[in-house]
Amino acid sequence: MAGLSERAIIRLIRGASVAAAPDLIQGIGDDCAVFGTPGAGQWLITTDTLVDSVHFDRAWHPPELLGRKSIAVNLSDIAAMGGRPRFVLLSLCLPQDLETEWLQRWLAGVAAILAEQGCVLIGGDTVRGRELVISVTVIGEAAPDQILYRTGATPGDSVYVSGPLGSAAAGLALFQRAKLEGTDPEQWSQWQDLLDAHLNPRPQVKLGQQLGSSGCVSAMQDVSDGLATDLAHICQESGTGSILYADRLPALSVIDNAAFFLNKEKLDLMLKGGEDYQLLFTVRPGKEKELEARLLTELSHQIYPVGTIIKGQGVLLEKSDGSRCDITFQGYEH
Amino acid sequence: MAGLSERAIIRLIRGASVAAAPDLIQGIGDDCAVFGTPGAGQWLITTDTLVDSVHFDRAWHPPELLGRKSIAVNLSDIAAMGGRPRFVLLSLCLPQDLETEWLQRWLAGVAAILAEQGCVLIGGDTVRGRELVISVTVIGEAAPDQILYRTGATPGDSVYVSGPLGSAAAGLALFQRAKLEGTDPEQWSQWQDLLDAHLNPRPQVKLGQQLGSSGCVSAMQDVSDGLATDLAHICQESGTGSILYADRLPALSVIDNAAFFLNKEKLDLMLKGGEDYQLLFTVRPGKEKELEARLLTELSHQIYPVGTIIKGQGVLLEKSDGSRCDITFQGYEH
Repeated sequence: MAGLSERAIIRLIRGASVAAAPDLIQGIGDDCAVFGTPGAGQWLITTDTLVDSVHFDRAWHPPELLGRKSIAVNLSDIAAMGGRPRFVLLSLCLPQDLETEWLQRWLAGVAAILAEQGCVLIGGDTVRGRELVISVTVIGEAAPDQILYRTGATPGDSVYVSGPLGSAAAGLALFQRAKLEGTDPEQWSQWQDLLDAHLNPRPQVKLGQQLGSSGCVSAMQDVSDGLATDLAHICQESGTGSILYADRLPALSVIDNAAFFLNKEKLDLMLKGGEDYQLLFTVRPGKEKELEARLLTELSHQIYPVGTIIKGQGVLLEKSDGSRCDITFQGYEH
Repeated sequence: MAGLSERAIIRLIRGASVAAAPDLIQGIGDDCAVFGTPGAGQWLITTDTLVDSVHFDRAWHPPELLGRKSIAVNLSDIAAMGGRPRFVLLSLCLPQDLETEWLQRWLAGVAAILAEQGCVLIGGDTVRGRELVISVTVIGEAAPDQILYRTGATPGDSVYVSGPLGSAAAGLALFQRAKLEGTDPEQWSQWQDLLDAHLNPRPQVKLGQQLGSSGCVSAMQDVSDGLATDLAHICQESGTGSILYADRLPALSVIDNAAFFLNKEKLDLMLKGGEDYQLLFTVRPGKEKELEARLLTELSHQIYPVGTIIKGQGVLLEKSDGSRCDITFQGYEH
């Protein structure tokens, strides 16, 4: 597969399926597929696969937290459509040398997050393989008029994110550095929030549902591949362009000295790092203050205006000196 | 994971989820999970994972036929509940050295069987890994009163299978033998049906729906792990035992000399080999002739009575001399 990017492969796969169905509301091309009988509630479905040493490193990832994260990345896709997660399927490819205790602790993490979210494990498959591969499918539900797609952004909409960016990327870089140097990341207590953001991301499930039913939001997806790529998806699907304002992007204050320590650009961590699992959404003109106030009151959740939807295409980054550069699809490719 | 069987792992996983939900009709423990809003149609969901060199061998499996089979094994689970397959998700873990042409041909096989079955590919995930892992999820639908579970068998019911057994296991053994000896299986044209049964199994989707709506069938599942294990599942879930009559088990006539050539017991291939993807079902007393006749008329499909549900537990095999032995769960573990 040398030379084929993930997006090229996805194009190949999309080409294998051109059929339609009256009860298929959304096929490939959003955070979830959506199906259901007209009139009744609609079902959302999403699947994500994590491969040992590609998507996680057992050297530093406690099995309980990896169990939580394996589910969380899918819950985030349900959240990004405004849905309520309901059912989960697990497909595990288990190598012979995986310890039973590791699997039990991983399952304990899975069970904990399922219980917290009111989700039920309803099926799956376990097979033998040479490497550990974890495939999770989550089914959610939503009222048809509460589902938010990537396609709804319009020039003039404001671009928002639900929380700090770059934390997970900084946390991952810290763990990688510690492994390389043979140091213990425990010593970096000042960066605990960054380490946690990588180990145990919190999908914005409640917020997603609130945004879905607000009537203020025109498009949404989650921040999984980095803002530069994720916003490019909304723009591509909506047929618009966008501007991000560099000095408005929210981040934890500790990211500054972590970026310095890591010899990385803070802005790169925030725009390209991915895995923050915040929500990225566009708000209709004139609805911004109403929505900000309502979320503060009802969920004590602050949201951050970071840009504007414009005519055209792609994602432009505007710095404080007024200069602009194109960052379309410059996020992380898993 | 040394020492833990697949069934032991599944017990561990089942333990991670004890929650219930009003719209969850069937969780772990059948061919598919079943969910849906009461009153509306119900949804079936199943997932299967195939690992390179564990579940298939690219040395002899043409990519188009493996594409078909990757979907077919899941369609068989939908068929085994009496459902109609509708939507498919693909999760692919692709190694760097996999040729683009192989993937294109595999996808062509996927696209062909989806088109034949009226299914739509609605999502998935592609990731990098060291080995090729193919995870397929299929969603089906069915009217609530047409879904058949493993739990419904009652003493006195007749046990039926939908077609010849052991073909796929014999075909697999022939390919393994050819690889070992460096011979070309093409020379074995007399065993083409066995080779085909392994390469390109045909899920009994139409028959499954017919059985679901017949009103004659009390329990059903597909023959994936071998009759000895698959019937044991029905018995376990129904709280019954069963007798299989060795001389009534259907097989292709060419299996006799293939088994002789392979130095294998024909009966082992039929009972323990698995992957035939026939349907295994129990028919209410007095309904046998009616059902046999109806299926012959409507689908030109012959079904085969092979045993009886009895009180007790497990699966007994009765040979023509009247001797009986216990073969409960003696099928193949993937």
